[in-house]
Amino acid sequence: MKLYQVVFHLDEPIEIKARGVLTNIDNLLNDMGDDAVQVELLANGAGVQVYLRNPGIFQEQIDRLKGRGVRFVACNNSLRALDIQLKDLMDSVEIVPAGVTELVMKQSEGWAYIKP
Amino acid sequence: MKLYQVVFHLDEPIEIKARGVLTNIDNLLNDMGDDAVQVELLANGAGVQVYLRNPGIFQEQIDRLKGRGVRFVACNNSLRALDIQLKDLMDSVEIVPAGVTELVMKQSEGWAYIKP
Amino acid sequence: MKLYQVVFHLDEPIEIKARGVLTNIDNLLNDMGDDAVQVELLANGAGVQVYLRNPGIFQEQIDRLKGRGVRFVACNNSLRALDIQLKDLMDSVEIVPAGVTELVMKQSEGWAYIKP
Repeated sequence: MKLYQVVFHLDEPIEIKARGVLTNIDNLLNDMGDDAVQVELLANGAGVQVYLRNPGIFQEQIDRLKGRGVRFVACNNSLRALDIQLKDLMDSVEIVPAGVTELVMKQSEGWAYIKP
Repeated sequence: MKLYQVVFHLDEPIEIKARGVLTNIDNLLNDMGDDAVQVELLANGAGVQVYLRNPGIFQEQIDRLKGRGVRFVACNNSLRALDIQLKDLMDSVEIVPAGVTELVMKQSEGWAYIKP
Repeated sequence: MKLYQVVFHLDEPIEIKARGVLTNIDNLLNDMGDDAVQVELLANGAGVQVYLRNPGIFQEQIDRLKGRGVRFVACNNSLRALDIQLKDLMDSVEIVPAGVTELVMKQSEGWAYIKP
Protein backbone atom coordinates (compact mmCIF):
# COMPACT_ATOMS: atom_id res chain seq x y z
CA MET A 1 0.00 0.00 0.00
CA LYS A 2 1.25 3.45 -0.89
CA LEU A 3 2.14 5.62 2.07
CA TYR A 4 0.93 9.19 1.70
CA GLN A 5 2.76 12.00 3.50
CA VAL A 6 1.64 15.52 4.27
CA VAL A 7 2.88 18.49 6.24
CA PHE A 8 0.32 21.00 7.50
CA HIS A 9 1.56 24.55 8.01
CA LEU A 10 0.29 26.84 10.76
CA ASP A 11 1.73 30.32 11.24
CA GLU A 12 -1.07 32.32 12.81
CA PRO A 13 -2.04 32.53 16.48
CA ILE A 14 -5.74 32.44 15.65
CA GLU A 15 -7.72 29.89 17.66
CA ILE A 16 -10.17 29.13 14.84
CA LYS A 17 -7.23 28.38 12.50
CA ALA A 18 -5.66 26.01 15.00
CA ARG A 19 -8.97 24.29 15.61
CA GLY A 20 -9.43 23.98 11.84
CA VAL A 21 -6.06 22.39 11.18
CA LEU A 22 -6.53 19.86 13.99
CA THR A 23 -9.97 18.98 12.61
CA ASN A 24 -8.38 18.62 9.15
CA ILE A 25 -5.85 16.15 10.56
CA ASP A 26 -8.58 14.21 12.37
CA ASN A 27 -10.64 14.01 9.18
CA LEU A 28 -7.64 12.94 7.13
CA LEU A 29 -6.73 10.09 9.48
CA ASN A 30 -10.33 8.98 9.75
CA ASP A 31 -10.74 9.02 5.98
CA MET A 32 -7.43 7.47 4.87
CA GLY A 33 -6.65 5.37 7.95
CA ASP A 34 -3.85 5.98 10.44
CA ASP A 35 -1.48 3.59 8.63
CA ALA A 36 -2.00 5.07 5.15
CA VAL A 37 -0.76 8.57 5.79
CA GLN A 38 2.09 10.16 7.70
CA VAL A 39 1.15 13.58 9.09
CA GLU A 40 3.18 16.44 10.51
CA LEU A 41 2.02 19.82 11.77
CA LEU A 42 4.74 22.43 11.38
CA ALA A 43 4.09 25.59 13.34
CA ASN A 44 6.20 28.70 12.91
CA GLY A 45 5.77 32.42 13.46
CA ALA A 46 3.04 33.15 15.98
CA GLY A 47 1.55 29.74 15.11
CA VAL A 48 3.86 28.12 17.67
CA GLN A 49 1.55 29.45 20.38
CA VAL A 50 -0.83 26.56 19.64
CA TYR A 51 1.70 24.41 21.51
CA LEU A 52 1.73 26.44 24.72
CA ARG A 53 1.14 24.28 27.77
CA ASN A 54 -0.74 27.19 29.22
CA PRO A 55 -3.64 27.71 28.55
CA GLY A 56 -3.28 24.43 26.62
CA ILE A 57 -6.62 24.72 24.82
CA PHE A 58 -5.62 21.99 22.36
CA GLN A 59 -3.56 19.81 24.71
CA GLU A 60 -6.00 16.90 24.77
CA GLN A 61 -6.55 16.89 21.00
CA ILE A 62 -2.82 17.17 20.27
CA ASP A 63 -1.91 14.37 22.67
CA ARG A 64 -4.60 12.16 21.16
CA LEU A 65 -3.41 12.84 17.59
CA LYS A 66 0.19 12.27 18.67
CA GLY A 67 -0.97 8.85 19.84
CA ARG A 68 -2.22 8.22 16.30
CA GLY A 69 1.23 8.98 14.88
CA VAL A 70 1.05 12.69 14.08
CA ARG A 71 4.25 14.69 14.65
CA PHE A 72 3.90 18.16 16.15
CA VAL A 73 6.85 20.37 15.29
CA ALA A 74 7.79 23.92 16.29
CA CYS A 75 10.28 26.31 14.69
CA ASN A 76 13.05 27.30 17.09
CA ASN A 77 13.63 30.66 15.38
CA SER A 78 10.02 31.52 16.16
CA LEU A 79 10.25 30.30 19.76
CA ARG A 80 13.30 32.51 20.33
CA ALA A 81 11.66 35.52 18.65
CA LEU A 82 8.62 35.13 20.94
CA ASP A 83 10.74 34.34 24.01
CA ILE A 84 9.01 30.99 24.51
CA GLN A 85 10.99 28.41 26.50
CA LEU A 86 10.97 24.66 25.96
CA LYS A 87 9.32 24.18 29.35
CA ASP A 88 6.40 26.30 28.15
CA LEU A 89 5.56 23.76 25.42
CA MET A 90 3.50 20.58 25.58
CA ASP A 91 5.49 17.35 25.86
CA SER A 92 4.16 16.20 22.48
CA VAL A 93 6.09 18.91 20.63
CA GLU A 94 9.42 18.50 18.82
CA ILE A 95 11.73 21.36 17.82
CA VAL A 96 13.47 22.03 14.51
CA PRO A 97 16.00 24.86 14.04
CA ALA A 98 14.06 26.55 11.20
CA GLY A 99 10.45 25.82 10.24
CA VAL A 100 10.89 26.94 6.64
CA THR A 101 13.77 24.51 6.13
CA GLU A 102 11.53 21.73 7.41
CA LEU A 103 8.80 22.73 4.90
CA VAL A 104 11.27 22.83 2.01
CA MET A 105 12.91 19.51 2.86
CA LYS A 106 9.67 17.63 3.44
CA GLN A 107 8.31 18.77 0.07
CA SER A 108 11.58 17.89 -1.65
CA GLU A 109 11.09 14.37 -0.23
CA GLY A 110 7.64 14.20 -1.85
CA TRP A 111 5.41 15.26 1.02
CA ALA A 112 2.25 17.18 0.17
CA TYR A 113 1.79 20.65 1.69
CA ILE A 114 -1.46 22.02 3.06
CA LYS A 115 -1.88 25.52 4.49
CA PRO A 116 -5.31 25.75 6.18
CA MET B 1 2.64 19.24 -24.99
CA LYS B 2 3.04 18.86 -21.25
CA LEU B 3 -0.22 18.99 -19.30
CA TYR B 4 0.06 21.06 -16.13
CA GLN B 5 -2.23 20.31 -13.20
CA VAL B 6 -3.12 22.44 -10.20
CA VAL B 7 -5.50 22.31 -7.29
CA PHE B 8 -6.57 25.60 -5.70
CA HIS B 9 -7.55 25.45 -2.04
CA LEU B 10 -10.27 27.63 -0.50
CA ASP B 11 -11.26 27.25 3.15
CA GLU B 12 -12.54 30.67 4.13
CA PRO B 13 -16.04 32.10 3.64
CA ILE B 14 -14.64 35.51 2.70
CA GLU B 15 -16.11 36.93 -0.49
CA ILE B 16 -12.90 38.71 -1.51
CA LYS B 17 -10.98 35.42 -1.18
CA ALA B 18 -13.49 33.59 -3.37
CA ARG B 19 -13.43 36.36 -5.94
CA GLY B 20 -9.63 36.25 -5.89
CA VAL B 21 -9.36 32.50 -6.46
CA LEU B 22 -11.84 32.60 -9.36
CA THR B 23 -9.88 35.48 -10.92
CA ASN B 24 -6.69 33.43 -10.43
CA ILE B 25 -8.25 30.52 -12.31
CA ASP B 26 -9.46 32.81 -15.11
CA ASN B 27 -5.99 34.34 -15.44
CA LEU B 28 -4.33 30.92 -15.43
CA LEU B 29 -6.54 29.57 -18.22
CA ASN B 30 -6.16 32.74 -20.26
CA ASP B 31 -2.39 32.68 -19.86
CA MET B 32 -1.67 28.96 -20.34
CA GLY B 33 -4.63 28.01 -22.53
CA ASP B 34 -7.56 25.80 -21.54
CA ASP B 35 -5.93 22.66 -22.98
CA ALA B 36 -2.55 23.16 -21.30
CA VAL B 37 -3.66 23.01 -17.69
CA GLN B 38 -6.11 20.96 -15.64
CA VAL B 39 -7.62 22.96 -12.78
CA GLU B 40 -9.58 21.98 -9.70
CA LEU B 41 -10.92 24.18 -6.92
CA LEU B 42 -11.17 22.25 -3.67
CA ALA B 43 -13.29 23.97 -1.04
CA ASN B 44 -13.44 22.74 2.52
CA GLY B 45 -14.24 24.23 5.92
CA ALA B 46 -16.36 27.35 5.61
CA GLY B 47 -15.00 27.74 2.07
CA VAL B 48 -17.74 25.41 0.79
CA GLN B 49 -20.16 28.33 1.13
CA VAL B 50 -18.82 29.68 -2.17
CA TYR B 51 -20.86 26.93 -3.80
CA LEU B 52 -24.22 27.85 -2.24
CA ARG B 53 -26.94 28.19 -4.84
CA ASN B 54 -28.34 30.96 -2.72
CA PRO B 55 -27.28 33.78 -2.88
CA GLY B 56 -25.15 32.31 -5.70
CA ILE B 57 -22.90 35.35 -6.06
CA PHE B 58 -20.39 33.35 -8.10
CA GLN B 59 -22.84 31.07 -9.95
CA GLU B 60 -22.29 32.60 -13.38
CA GLN B 61 -18.49 32.67 -13.08
CA ILE B 62 -18.34 29.11 -11.74
CA ASP B 63 -20.62 27.75 -14.49
CA ARG B 64 -18.53 29.52 -17.12
CA LEU B 65 -15.25 28.15 -15.72
CA LYS B 66 -16.80 24.68 -15.47
CA GLY B 67 -17.51 25.01 -19.20
CA ARG B 68 -13.77 25.59 -19.68
CA GLY B 69 -12.97 22.34 -17.89
CA VAL B 70 -12.45 23.43 -14.28
CA ARG B 71 -13.66 20.98 -11.61
CA PHE B 72 -15.38 22.46 -8.55
CA VAL B 73 -15.17 20.14 -5.57
CA ALA B 74 -16.60 20.34 -2.05
CA CYS B 75 -15.61 18.43 1.08
CA ASN B 76 -18.47 16.35 2.45
CA ASN B 77 -17.16 16.51 6.03
CA SER B 78 -17.45 20.28 5.83
CA LEU B 79 -20.94 20.17 4.29
CA ARG B 80 -22.12 17.95 7.12
CA ALA B 81 -20.51 20.13 9.78
CA LEU B 82 -22.26 23.19 8.35
CA ASP B 83 -25.55 21.33 7.76
CA ILE B 84 -25.48 22.14 4.04
CA GLN B 85 -27.52 19.78 1.83
CA LEU B 86 -26.66 18.69 -1.71
CA LYS B 87 -29.71 20.55 -3.02
CA ASP B 88 -28.28 23.77 -1.58
CA LEU B 89 -25.25 23.54 -3.89
CA MET B 90 -24.82 24.66 -7.50
CA ASP B 91 -25.11 21.91 -10.11
CA SER B 92 -21.49 22.46 -11.14
CA VAL B 93 -20.20 21.12 -7.81
CA GLU B 94 -18.88 17.61 -7.13
CA ILE B 95 -18.48 16.08 -3.67
CA VAL B 96 -15.54 14.20 -2.16
CA PRO B 97 -15.70 12.49 1.25
CA ALA B 98 -12.76 14.45 2.70
CA GLY B 99 -11.22 17.57 1.20
CA VAL B 100 -7.84 17.02 2.83
CA THR B 101 -7.56 13.55 1.31
CA GLU B 102 -8.22 15.08 -2.09
CA LEU B 103 -5.45 17.66 -1.52
CA VAL B 104 -2.97 14.97 -0.43
CA MET B 105 -3.77 12.60 -3.29
CA LYS B 106 -3.68 15.25 -6.00
CA GLN B 107 -0.26 16.44 -4.84
CA SER B 108 1.01 12.86 -4.64
CA GLU B 109 -0.01 12.54 -8.31
CA GLY B 110 2.11 15.60 -9.16
CA TRP B 111 -0.47 18.36 -9.08
CA ALA B 112 0.68 21.80 -7.96
CA TYR B 113 -1.03 23.38 -4.94
CA ILE B 114 -2.02 27.03 -4.62
CA LYS B 115 -3.64 28.55 -1.56
CA PRO B 116 -4.82 32.08 -2.44
CA MET C 1 25.22 18.90 -2.76
CA LYS C 2 21.50 18.87 -3.50
CA LEU C 3 20.08 22.25 -4.46
CA TYR C 4 16.75 22.96 -2.80
CA GLN C 5 14.25 25.30 -4.47
CA VAL C 6 11.25 27.09 -3.03
CA VAL C 7 8.76 29.69 -4.13
CA PHE C 8 7.08 31.79 -1.45
CA HIS C 9 3.62 33.14 -2.30
CA LEU C 10 2.34 36.52 -1.10
CA ASP C 11 -1.09 37.80 -2.16
CA GLU C 12 -2.16 40.08 0.66
CA PRO C 13 -1.25 43.74 1.20
CA ILE C 14 -0.84 43.24 4.94
CA GLU C 15 2.42 44.63 6.33
CA ILE C 16 2.79 41.95 8.97
CA LYS C 17 2.46 39.25 6.28
CA ALA C 18 5.14 40.86 4.14
CA ARG C 19 7.44 41.26 7.11
CA GLY C 20 6.81 37.60 7.99
CA VAL C 21 7.66 36.25 4.54
CA LEU C 22 10.87 38.29 4.36
CA THR C 23 11.87 37.02 7.80
CA ASN C 24 11.07 33.48 6.61
CA ILE C 25 13.41 33.93 3.65
CA ASP C 26 16.15 35.36 5.87
CA ASN C 27 15.83 32.43 8.27
CA LEU C 28 15.87 29.92 5.42
CA LEU C 29 19.05 31.32 3.89
CA ASN C 30 20.73 31.58 7.28
CA ASP C 31 19.78 28.01 8.15
CA MET C 32 20.47 26.24 4.82
CA GLY C 33 23.13 28.54 3.43
CA ASP C 34 22.80 30.86 0.42
CA ASP C 35 24.25 28.27 -1.97
CA ALA C 36 22.03 25.39 -0.84
CA VAL C 37 18.65 26.85 -1.71
CA GLN C 38 17.19 28.87 -4.56
CA VAL C 39 14.44 31.21 -3.39
CA GLU C 40 11.76 33.19 -5.21
CA LEU C 41 9.05 35.42 -3.80
CA LEU C 42 6.05 35.52 -6.10
CA ALA C 43 3.62 38.33 -5.33
CA ASN C 44 0.23 38.58 -6.98
CA GLY C 45 -3.11 40.17 -6.16
CA ALA C 46 -2.74 43.00 -3.70
CA GLY C 47 0.50 41.37 -2.53
CA VAL C 48 2.39 43.20 -5.30
CA GLN C 49 2.16 46.34 -3.18
CA VAL C 50 5.09 45.04 -1.13
CA TYR C 51 7.23 46.04 -4.10
CA LEU C 52 6.12 49.67 -4.28
CA ARG C 53 9.06 52.04 -4.34
CA ASN C 54 6.95 54.38 -2.31
CA PRO C 55 6.70 54.13 0.69
CA GLY C 56 9.29 51.37 0.17
CA ILE C 57 9.06 49.99 3.71
CA PHE C 58 10.86 46.82 2.70
CA GLN C 59 13.25 48.30 0.11
CA GLU C 60 16.41 47.75 2.14
CA GLN C 61 15.52 44.20 3.16
CA ILE C 62 14.49 43.25 -0.39
CA ASP C 63 17.65 44.71 -1.92
CA ARG C 64 19.77 42.89 0.64
CA LEU C 65 18.02 39.55 -0.02
CA LYS C 66 18.29 40.11 -3.77
CA GLY C 67 22.04 40.42 -3.20
CA ARG C 68 21.92 36.95 -1.60
CA GLY C 69 20.30 35.53 -4.75
CA VAL C 70 16.58 35.77 -3.99
CA ARG C 71 14.34 36.58 -6.98
CA PHE C 72 11.48 38.99 -6.39
CA VAL C 73 8.70 38.53 -8.92
CA ALA C 74 5.42 40.38 -9.53
CA CYS C 75 2.34 39.29 -11.51
CA ASN C 76 1.61 41.62 -14.40
CA ASN C 77 -2.13 40.85 -14.35
CA SER C 78 -2.20 42.15 -10.78
CA LEU C 79 -0.14 45.25 -11.59
CA ARG C 80 -2.56 46.14 -14.40
CA ALA C 81 -5.61 45.50 -12.20
CA LEU C 82 -4.20 47.83 -9.54
CA ASP C 83 -2.95 50.38 -12.10
CA ILE C 84 0.62 50.09 -10.86
CA GLN C 85 3.31 51.11 -13.36
CA LEU C 86 6.75 49.57 -13.75
CA LYS C 87 8.34 52.81 -12.61
CA ASP C 88 6.44 52.50 -9.32
CA LEU C 89 8.28 49.27 -8.48
CA MET C 90 11.67 48.74 -6.85
CA ASP C 91 14.52 47.94 -9.25
CA SER C 92 14.95 44.52 -7.67
CA VAL C 93 11.58 43.31 -9.01
CA GLU C 94 11.02 41.18 -12.12
CA ILE C 95 7.67 40.81 -13.92
CA VAL C 96 5.90 37.67 -15.13
CA PRO C 97 2.71 37.79 -17.23
CA ALA C 98 0.65 35.68 -14.77
CA GLY C 99 1.64 34.88 -11.20
CA VAL C 100 -0.43 31.69 -11.04
CA THR C 101 1.33 30.30 -14.11
CA GLU C 102 4.66 30.94 -12.40
CA LEU C 103 3.47 29.06 -9.29
CA VAL C 104 2.25 26.11 -11.36
CA MET C 105 5.39 25.87 -13.48
CA LYS C 106 7.81 26.19 -10.59
CA GLN C 107 6.05 23.39 -8.69
CA SER C 108 5.97 21.22 -11.82
CA GLU C 109 9.76 21.66 -11.94
CA GLY C 110 10.02 20.36 -8.37
CA TRP C 111 10.10 23.58 -6.40
CA ALA C 112 8.52 23.55 -2.94
CA TYR C 113 5.68 25.99 -2.24
CA ILE C 114 5.21 27.97 0.97
CA LYS C 115 2.30 30.32 1.64
CA PRO C 116 3.04 32.30 4.82
